[in-house]
Amino acid sequence: MPFLESLGLRYDGDAGTLHVLDQTRLPHEERWLDGSDPADMVGHIQRLSVRGAPMIGVCAALSLACASRRCTRSQLLAHAAALRAARPTAVNLMWAVDRLVAAIKADEDIPAAAEQIFAEDVARCAAMARHGAPLIAAGTRALTHCNTGGLATAGDGTALAVIRRAHAEGRLAHVWVDETRPLLQGARLTTWELARAGIPHTLITDSAAAMLMAAGRVDAVLVGADRIAANGDFANKIGTLALALLAHHHALPFYVVAPRSTVDPACPGGHAIPIEERDPDEVRGGPGAPPWAPTDVPVCNPAFDVTPAALVTAWVLDTGVLRREEVDAGALRS
Amino acid sequence: MPFLESLGLRYDGDAGTLHVLDQTRLPHEERWLDGSDPADMVGHIQRLSVRGAPMIGVCAALSLACASRRCTRSQLLAHAAALRAARPTAVNLMWAVDRLVAAIKADEDIPAAAEQIFAEDVARCAAMARHGAPLIAAGTRALTHCNTGGLATAGDGTALAVIRRAHAEGRLAHVWVDETRPLLQGARLTTWELARAGIPHTLITDSAAAMLMAAGRVDAVLVGADRIAANGDFANKIGTLALALLAHHHALPFYVVAPRSTVDPACPGGHAIPIEERDPDEVRGGPGAPPWAPTDVPVCNPAFDVTPAALVTAWVLDTGVLRREEVDAGALRS
Repeated sequence: MPFLESLGLRYDGDAGTLHVLDQTRLPHEERWLDGSDPADMVGHIQRLSVRGAPMIGVCAALSLACASRRCTRSQLLAHAAALRAARPTAVNLMWAVDRLVAAIKADEDIPAAAEQIFAEDVARCAAMARHGAPLIAAGTRALTHCNTGGLATAGDGTALAVIRRAHAEGRLAHVWVDETRPLLQGARLTTWELARAGIPHTLITDSAAAMLMAAGRVDAVLVGADRIAANGDFANKIGTLALALLAHHHALPFYVVAPRSTVDPACPGGHAIPIEERDPDEVRGGPGAPPWAPTDVPVCNPAFDVTPAALVTAWVLDTGVLRREEVDAGALRS
Repeated sequence: MPFLESLGLRYDGDAGTLHVLDQTRLPHEERWLDGSDPADMVGHIQRLSVRGAPMIGVCAALSLACASRRCTRSQLLAHAAALRAARPTAVNLMWAVDRLVAAIKADEDIPAAAEQIFAEDVARCAAMARHGAPLIAAGTRALTHCNTGGLATAGDGTALAVIRRAHAEGRLAHVWVDETRPLLQGARLTTWELARAGIPHTLITDSAAAMLMAAGRVDAVLVGADRIAANGDFANKIGTLALALLAHHHALPFYVVAPRSTVDPACPGGHAIPIEERDPDEVRGGPGAPPWAPTDVPVCNPAFDVTPAALVTAWVLDTGVLRREEVDAGALRS
């Protein structure tokens, strides 16, 4: 597989190059960044030019594959360590890098290992869509948060892949897109993806979701996950916990969609998931403009929050759908 | 009272002039706009240069007072009608304009009537603070939404006046400030007011409130209101309903603070409150920058939502504190 392509990445295995779509420039500009050097890729990941838990794992692996053509083994291992530490919450990144480290140490074909991670991610997205779409009833107006689509994975996405498939099957009526402050991945990326896919959608502020639910205008909530603990608690983009509580209050189904690699069996519960705190300036303003808040205002900017398993209707994994009883009985513990 | 001044307005009764602080330019620029002509004031109110339910009532009245020096009675009544219709949700605006219309029709002293509305608003803010502050326990970390302070009233504010007084009395430890998308009144205005007042505060995105509550870092929620129905339901800035549901889930006290003039006894319940839908561009981007979302993305942008009375711990009015039992028994019906 010398050439691999998805919505957000282009990898040329023969040339040893990787380019990633700069997601901070979307939707207005489609600028591609060189990610062939893992040192650059660390920066792309930290600045969120590349984001989405599965996507950063795939990109880290392919970047190491490119580097393997010109780096020594010890250089590669140093790059791997830097990539692994680039963002603390997403477990897929650690999992992908660890697989590459094993290949490096075992002197296996490093590009082949990375390309396999890409191919597996594409297949996983398709499997999540296949398992999740039947949960979506005819006429569903779904609400989603952040971006969980083709930009967040190597395939069609996690929650957004389920939405796409339900739409293709004629059952999904509409998507409410949370803008997802502070970095506005919903407003910038999910809207862009849904428009490309021809799926009807409406952008809202994060705080408007409650009103729409109270008005009976939302039928289901679908979100992704950055890490799922063994008890089913999961970390996802800040704002997910509020949606889960609001869905619970309004008796709406709340689905978390993620590849099995997002499950961290070593993590007993949500309390043990490290939560990344990001730059205060993300909250003091928006992209591409001077801050609108006082430039010295104290800020609390957690990138993620933790939703307890008790608020989840079902976990849609590439390996199948798990209901609460199964998760409570230990289905995620290994 | 020839000269009246508050954080956001300057009125010279002798000269017949009114200037208002352009709240869209805060916190970075303190620009004053001429509001002596009611036709200009309608624009200031609609563009939210002047905002806050009590404040727009006071400014509408003082603008009519200025105009009364040079307009005929029929011109004044036409101005009054335009001001009354400037924003559909806030009942204080209608109440203030109706009082001026009665003065115009009865050939009473129009400036005196307007100046009395100003003075009453100042006194009402002090009364709300006096009634509400005792509800705040020692060490409270309060969470608030939008701006309910000196910029939203002629006095110290509604919810923020309670916070100020509890702080002055040594009991308030900290304020979490919701940024309040889409127009960011929390990020731009409440932070500015709290910094001026020396009250410790931290800015958060609206969607981070749930996580702080779940972590036990919030002790009470205080918000204002744009209209309170006879059954205690109330309309307030979009996002208030979510906070009320989250506070309810976490067993936190949730207080709505407003002058009695915000109560609309003719409105039986929240379903009867008209909700203003605003410009989609407010959600497609932020202040002072090109939009970050696709410029043609469909948007749902309700300015307010309705919180049911069942989620309110107490209504703090200038006339006293009402508990749920009293509201259920009809305390707001006349």
